[in-house]
Amino acid sequence: MTTTADSTNREKRRFRVVGTRPIRHDGVDKVTGRAKFGIDTQVAGLLCGAILRSPHAHARIRKIDASKAEALPGVKAVMTARDLPEKPDQHENFWEVLANVDALARNMMARDKVLFKGHAVAAVAAINPHVADEALGLIEIEYETLPHVIDVRAAMEPGAPILHDDLRTQGGAQDATADAPTNVANHIQFALGDVAKGFKEADAIVERSFQTKSVHQGYIEPSNSTASWSADGYLTIWKSTQAPFIVRQQVALILRIPVSSIRIVPMEIGGGFGGKVNTDIDPITAILSKKTGQPVKIVLNRSEVFEGTGPAPCAHNTVKIGATKDGKITAVEATLVYGAGAFPGGGAGGGAMTALSPYKIENVKIDGYDVVLNTPWTAAYRAPGVPQAAHATEQVIDELAQKLEMDPMELRLKNVTRPGDRQVTGIPFPSMGIAEVEEAMLRHPHYRAPLGGPNRGRGAAMGYWGNHGMHSSATIAVNSNGTISLITGSVDIGGSRPVLAIQAAEVLGIDVEDIRPSVGDTDSVGYTSVTGGSRTAHDTGIAVIQASEEVIRRMRDRAALLWETQAEDVAFQDGLFVSKTDSGDRLTFKELAAKLLVTGGPVSASASVEPKSIGPSASGMIVDVEVDPETGKVDVLRATIFQDAGKAAHPSYVEGQMQGGATQGLGWGLNEEYFFDESGAMVNSSFLDYRMPITMDLPMIEPVVVEVPSPGHPFGLRGVGESSIVSPMAAVSNAISRATGVRMEHLPLSPRYILERTAQVGESAG
Amino acid sequence: MTTTADSTNREKRRFRVVGTRPIRHDGVDKVTGRAKFGIDTQVAGLLCGAILRSPHAHARIRKIDASKAEALPGVKAVMTARDLPEKPDQHENFWEVLANVDALARNMMARDKVLFKGHAVAAVAAINPHVADEALGLIEIEYETLPHVIDVRAAMEPGAPILHDDLRTQGGAQDATADAPTNVANHIQFALGDVAKGFKEADAIVERSFQTKSVHQGYIEPSNSTASWSADGYLTIWKSTQAPFIVRQQVALILRIPVSSIRIVPMEIGGGFGGKVNTDIDPITAILSKKTGQPVKIVLNRSEVFEGTGPAPCAHNTVKIGATKDGKITAVEATLVYGAGAFPGGGAGGGAMTALSPYKIENVKIDGYDVVLNTPWTAAYRAPGVPQAAHATEQVIDELAQKLEMDPMELRLKNVTRPGDRQVTGIPFPSMGIAEVEEAMLRHPHYRAPLGGPNRGRGAAMGYWGNHGMHSSATIAVNSNGTISLITGSVDIGGSRPVLAIQAAEVLGIDVEDIRPSVGDTDSVGYTSVTGGSRTAHDTGIAVIQASEEVIRRMRDRAALLWETQAEDVAFQDGLFVSKTDSGDRLTFKELAAKLLVTGGPVSASASVEPKSIGPSASGMIVDVEVDPETGKVDVLRATIFQDAGKAAHPSYVEGQMQGGATQGLGWGLNEEYFFDESGAMVNSSFLDYRMPITMDLPMIEPVVVEVPSPGHPFGLRGVGESSIVSPMAAVSNAISRATGVRMEHLPLSPRYILERTAQVGESAG
Repeated sequence: MTTTADSTNREKRRFRVVGTRPIRHDGVDKVTGRAKFGIDTQVAGLLCGAILRSPHAHARIRKIDASKAEALPGVKAVMTARDLPEKPDQHENFWEVLANVDALARNMMARDKVLFKGHAVAAVAAINPHVADEALGLIEIEYETLPHVIDVRAAMEPGAPILHDDLRTQGGAQDATADAPTNVANHIQFALGDVAKGFKEADAIVERSFQTKSVHQGYIEPSNSTASWSADGYLTIWKSTQAPFIVRQQVALILRIPVSSIRIVPMEIGGGFGGKVNTDIDPITAILSKKTGQPVKIVLNRSEVFEGTGPAPCAHNTVKIGATKDGKITAVEATLVYGAGAFPGGGAGGGAMTALSPYKIENVKIDGYDVVLNTPWTAAYRAPGVPQAAHATEQVIDELAQKLEMDPMELRLKNVTRPGDRQVTGIPFPSMGIAEVEEAMLRHPHYRAPLGGPNRGRGAAMGYWGNHGMHSSATIAVNSNGTISLITGSVDIGGSRPVLAIQAAEVLGIDVEDIRPSVGDTDSVGYTSVTGGSRTAHDTGIAVIQASEEVIRRMRDRAALLWETQAEDVAFQDGLFVSKTDSGDRLTFKELAAKLLVTGGPVSASASVEPKSIGPSASGMIVDVEVDPETGKVDVLRATIFQDAGKAAHPSYVEGQMQGGATQGLGWGLNEEYFFDESGAMVNSSFLDYRMPITMDLPMIEPVVVEVPSPGHPFGLRGVGESSIVSPMAAVSNAISRATGVRMEHLPLSPRYILERTAQVGESAG
Repeated sequence: MTTTADSTNREKRRFRVVGTRPIRHDGVDKVTGRAKFGIDTQVAGLLCGAILRSPHAHARIRKIDASKAEALPGVKAVMTARDLPEKPDQHENFWEVLANVDALARNMMARDKVLFKGHAVAAVAAINPHVADEALGLIEIEYETLPHVIDVRAAMEPGAPILHDDLRTQGGAQDATADAPTNVANHIQFALGDVAKGFKEADAIVERSFQTKSVHQGYIEPSNSTASWSADGYLTIWKSTQAPFIVRQQVALILRIPVSSIRIVPMEIGGGFGGKVNTDIDPITAILSKKTGQPVKIVLNRSEVFEGTGPAPCAHNTVKIGATKDGKITAVEATLVYGAGAFPGGGAGGGAMTALSPYKIENVKIDGYDVVLNTPWTAAYRAPGVPQAAHATEQVIDELAQKLEMDPMELRLKNVTRPGDRQVTGIPFPSMGIAEVEEAMLRHPHYRAPLGGPNRGRGAAMGYWGNHGMHSSATIAVNSNGTISLITGSVDIGGSRPVLAIQAAEVLGIDVEDIRPSVGDTDSVGYTSVTGGSRTAHDTGIAVIQASEEVIRRMRDRAALLWETQAEDVAFQDGLFVSKTDSGDRLTFKELAAKLLVTGGPVSASASVEPKSIGPSASGMIVDVEVDPETGKVDVLRATIFQDAGKAAHPSYVEGQMQGGATQGLGWGLNEEYFFDESGAMVNSSFLDYRMPITMDLPMIEPVVVEVPSPGHPFGLRGVGESSIVSPMAAVSNAISRATGVRMEHLPLSPRYILERTAQVGESAG
């Protein structure tokens, strides 16, 4: 694993702590089992909850009779959607909810119709899981089954089964009948220049359609929630979540109670990847707790996680790109259709805005559609919407390079976007390092290394993710031995404790080991948005830096007091408070910390921030594969992932994010898929049948960190969590296409698909 | 229960929230069992710890053989003092440890000598309490018993058994042999004027000696500690404590590890009263956890609480007061001797400094002594040291009034101290309300009400407690619905959540119910000293007020942003942000809170303070008793407790403190005592035999709140937690003396003592 500093990073800043690799504070706890996850929550009188789910993909609920279940000894309560308010409260500020709360409520528990197999319809609380399970079997539900649709194109056809009678979308595929119900939940369009003219100028044009399937984030720890609703109406929820404050707001709206009567305690989290941003089953455990007067815990099993939580959308994307002989792209036209699952949502926005970011294009038209289907409602999954789109665009670019007989990386660099260039939204790009990443890829030995055998191919692809700044808060309290407590509201998923501690240490002039970072609950820290959107190290980092600077200001006042001078006469540099007078007075941070209690009391400081710019992150992958021509099996021989981290605060965790994203992208590309039967039931909802990559499936993935500092962060950090998942699906598709000579149009690139596809193309060519 | 505002409180300030009586935030949790106390701590792999204690009051430990215990199946570890560092680390700042840490360590577990019956000598960790108990019985200890001493006067005699060979005290009773070991741990003297001259001027002199016994704070929840020492050396301790940061520092020093590697999680506390300030068994659970690699919990049983934790000192106090015919006190001489228990400590300082505070005296000499004994090491108990001294001084004043044939309250008022008068330390009194309390007592109907029967008597006495400001921190985070999270490090014993919320609400212009107060652990809040010293509502209150004011400053900036004006042009008054321009712009706190996320992000603020002045609190009691001349049994007929609260932030909790202190003082006076047999063993170490007052023992105690605002607090608060325990022992003694015609010299005023005393005085008179 190597890190190459980017040569274009001209202005080198020296850091004392940023860029080092200290051991994470929660490491030992997590490997020894001392860390407490949601499932570890134990409170007195705890009941066990369980959820009954629809066996049908689409059906009207005629009647629910829970009387037999309620009569079962050991059952304490049964609930259905009738126990929830009819409608959630309205809320104006999207950034506080990050979701369609109405859909969240109806997805959590079906009211009149079930919209997918696995849709929750009732829940019980009982004295133990056996009684709870038995009770589920005693709930009698009368369904009127309805025709269902699980394919995006079929769902857009006139006459398709309609999921939501009240759904209307202007400019949808059924635009002519915009006043009639549709399954198209959203249509977004970006258009610049004159596409027809652009294609006219092209010497080569490639147009192709691609299909990708729904995949799950695959977090190890299943979704869980323990709720305790006290007699005074105060609700405490312990759970695995990426976003305790968001969940608090969503639960408040769904249950129509004030946020201030809810406390969300974020436990350690066993993976989220975007899938644990929203409230999932909390209103269910809450209502069961309210009904029983006891705390209630629900932990989903793996099938429920697959069938009842949100995977990434499937997609059907068509991309057409034209270029001149010398490789200048003249026009792009794309239609991106995402399967949102049971409720409006999906990935069209992210895909349409971002997939073409690596290319400077004058004439472009992109249409994005989100389409509802009788499948689980989709959720965010690392760079939501973009990998599906990049899977299409980056293959068409590769094919175009083949057609033009150019090196595909050279084609990319020829058209590369740079800061100030126009995005498809018309807004100029901020500082970002697509060109630097592409140069690093071209320069890397992997790109030119011999493949060393037959049936092998090398593919490359680019990725880009804009990132988004959100709210963060941090509090610092100084201990008298010169250590500090660092309190934030950011759930630690990928090492944010050390990464935030590094930033505090850099400002305060102390060691990372002298910092105890902790994650507060919603009652005990300032408002902090999701750990997601690649924003935590960046946004919460800025809050930490500001709180640290305030600590220094307050300590400078103390030094001035001690030295009988003015604060302006005290400098702080390299961890040392120094008098600017000729007194020779100087104190280290630790020395001064020891004197705080006797010079006016302890020092603490809080900061809350809303960074506007978080710094987009470009990425790219080079991958070598060997395809077994007899079985279609793909071996990944070598994989290198490149990413612009701005500045890698803790290189190991940046590399870890890159390797993780690359691994998930390769899994998405090669193995993973939601496999539905004709009835709309997912038939592979276990980790045995839903095949995620394991260590034996992949080589060591080499991460190459490129550093183009972001001007929006004092140390130059960019968000690094998501971008790395964007390119692998296209990269491995390109590699297989090169190895087999056949362009791959579907995911996953399973042996069966590769054999069928190569046979089919061979036939049509023959 | 009535509250009378003091008539001398001339400058009346209007408050919106301060002075109201909202329901405490933790009330429902505490009455429904949802609140989590130390004993409720559950962590995976928890072991049960138990402590072996000395059967001897004084003995040398020759040998400890734990091999049989260690061999018992289910025993995971045995520890002795050898497993602790030989000596604690040194620490300079007393205010961060509040104790003699060396003694804490040796009290926690005996190293070479046991110094009292119940002194811990070894501990085990086992899979369950039965195995742990059995293991204790298998630990073989060879003791060499030594002569012991449990009486303060005997301990000061030449030739008394010596507890600590290295103890030397200048000016002790054995001053002539100041180079020889002594049991006198401390001698303090205050002298003003010319005492001999003062007594010469007196027309009447009363001199008398009094004895009080050790009593326990009697908190309902026994001491407990659960420790988890992780493989990376990070120690977490969940416990019932008044002072998590103090305990953290003490544990760090005793174990010689940095404070930053320790996290103390203060659970809800079932009473402390000064007895849960210091670490007690935490290093034991910590070492057992370190040895076993598993978390270990120890909960003391009631006998262990009595015999192994710190009660209040016993005392033998002699007071001589002279006055002129017209009631002017001319001189006071006092010798206060406190039994500190097994290690240096005790109450001489508090007693000597404070007991004479109600009286303006020109000629005074007070000698205070703390004496070590072979009894449990004493600890703080509400106004530590003062009730014992006031028991003596307030009876001598009463007797002097009898001699002068004056009303004792009029004698007091004639000599009353006022702000600016000199204390015995020579330092002038700050603002305080002794005179106002005395006037309120004289004015109260109780003072003149007919006694209504024979064998009845009325007694009055004064109390005073100086209070002490210490460090506190508070953090406030604003929610978008206009509610706030209020985070402090002050453990909530007597209602500090609502009392702190009241102060925030007053500044912020919101309701107390819109505030969620929470108590952080040592990793998650700014440094905050003990909940004790009557300081929490006052000191942490000031931190809360400062943080609230900072919130208002930051929100004013936002209002200015919204109104496109300057912060100086925005006023905040009565919960309203108002533009000073003629724009007519105005927003309530809640309205502006809803706009924070879109005007620069959330708002939070922290403050840390070290108030110098906390405002002393004067108090007094009037009590009526009836003494059964045949049995000596005392019935308390009526009791009224008066106290200067400065300003009662939440009158119900002030009244509760007053009633609680009065009840404890009456228990101390009438029933409670550590009763030792000749071997030095406490023979009444259970709640059956150690008789604390229950509701049937006492009438409703009427609290009268006097309000003389303290200038050191923005709303005029004074610390109210301790002062009310100072007067009851003297008041009830005075009442019994009046009822029986015989001056009482001992506590408790048990039926047996009263019969013996009245018979003895009757005899000598007859």
